[in-house]
Amino acid sequence: MGSNQPIGIFDSGIGGLTVFRAIREVLPNESMVYLGDTARVPYGNKSPETVIKYSLQNASFLVSRGVKVIVVACNTSAAHSLSILSSKFDVPIIGVIEPGAKKAIEVSRNKNIGVIATLGTIMSNAYANMLKRIDSKVRVVSLACPLFVPIVEEGWLDDDVSEAIARRYLSTIASEGIDTLILGCTHYPLLKNVIKKVVGNGVTLIDSGEATAHALKGLLKDRDLLSEAVNGGHHLYVTDVPSRFEITANNFLGGDMPPIKRIEL
Amino acid sequence: MGSNQPIGIFDSGIGGLTVFRAIREVLPNESMVYLGDTARVPYGNKSPETVIKYSLQNASFLVSRGVKVIVVACNTSAAHSLSILSSKFDVPIIGVIEPGAKKAIEVSRNKNIGVIATLGTIMSNAYANMLKRIDSKVRVVSLACPLFVPIVEEGWLDDDVSEAIARRYLSTIASEGIDTLILGCTHYPLLKNVIKKVVGNGVTLIDSGEATAHALKGLLKDRDLLSEAVNGGHHLYVTDVPSRFEITANNFLGGDMPPIKRIEL
Repeated sequence: MGSNQPIGIFDSGIGGLTVFRAIREVLPNESMVYLGDTARVPYGNKSPETVIKYSLQNASFLVSRGVKVIVVACNTSAAHSLSILSSKFDVPIIGVIEPGAKKAIEVSRNKNIGVIATLGTIMSNAYANMLKRIDSKVRVVSLACPLFVPIVEEGWLDDDVSEAIARRYLSTIASEGIDTLILGCTHYPLLKNVIKKVVGNGVTLIDSGEATAHALKGLLKDRDLLSEAVNGGHHLYVTDVPSRFEITANNFLGGDMPPIKRIEL
Repeated sequence: MGSNQPIGIFDSGIGGLTVFRAIREVLPNESMVYLGDTARVPYGNKSPETVIKYSLQNASFLVSRGVKVIVVACNTSAAHSLSILSSKFDVPIIGVIEPGAKKAIEVSRNKNIGVIATLGTIMSNAYANMLKRIDSKVRVVSLACPLFVPIVEEGWLDDDVSEAIARRYLSTIASEGIDTLILGCTHYPLLKNVIKKVVGNGVTLIDSGEATAHALKGLLKDRDLLSEAVNGGHHLYVTDVPSRFEITANNFLGGDMPPIKRIEL
């Protein structure tokens, strides 16, 4: 059977394009509808109620576009709203938290795992709870890094300022004996180099977006929802198109950007 | 005659509390209604259309609360929406751009003036246009400093990281021969120390919020709208109350914070 309906993805902004990109690589035959809520970005420093409200609006939009599954690419949104979304919509909903946590436990040898993310994701305890649900013996060290999103959006990815900021945030977590570090925000993979410099080569970095692309493939296979046609193209929607948008979006996507349409929610 | 109706102030978030504070000092008999659009903050990296839409909603809320004047404390909002707001509402509207520009021209001896602000404010050219309208011979150097807002919200006001960031942004503007620098964003006055370190004592910093408080006093006097009673208390409204909100808000306000109420727009 299968299904040629598109995969829906939403994010607070354009960071989720790293997840879009990972899915495009893992599932090249699938069409995707991406929604970035760029008018109300960021979600990471907002309250759970506000993030849930916006997430419901985002998911409704994707459902109205006939998607067969919804990927919540935004970690903060997944942390606060995944169970509510799952109860409100009929299509399967997959977030980035569970795949990231599973991958980290699979990779870690000493079961000492670090999580870095926005303030909202860290305060929610979503990663720590998920890690402990999978393996109750795991030790989790969590840390919010609020400046990582703005330095990525500024394009300061690997220089003295980004290193100084990474060092201030991460020097404590690096001394905690962790051997695995979850990058619990879609922006953070763009800081991989500078994060590696600070935490050292002994720590494996986990990109939750990549892990999610593989988990999504498994989910579609299990439910017999994989596309049986060549993909019919992708659709990118945003709620605002600010200046310099295309340059930043292209940084996240690594080129080959579908046309961008603006919508009101 | 006078008017005992409150003064309305809105901002994209809590940065405008620096303007609230300046008005409270200059006009101690006035009551104020402050609205911070914390659910959709920041405005500085969003498009003019989106900023205008949100600004109209903010102003409508204040008008519904019976204010006698509206102060647009957010520089980005003032840059994009001041003339539209003035045409849509009957109450007088005052932004931070004109008072800041006037003060800078008053203070500058060599008529070489710098402006630092968000990307939205700089792209609008609002300060440069206003400065040249007041004095066509003035030379203006403008620069967007997108990371200044997030480092203020992180509380990194005067340390090695904030200094490294200030140095990267401001070292070019410091060599332009300016003797006056407009802080064209409500957050920037909290970085005064570190900005001074980089640009040197020969450059006078202009706080547009302070200039606006004095301009507001003049406007209320001219229109016979000054309060003739002791102020009946202030009201603070926000569209979201994220974690750590009160700590950050208090940093901006310098203590003595009225109770905060949350509303939906």
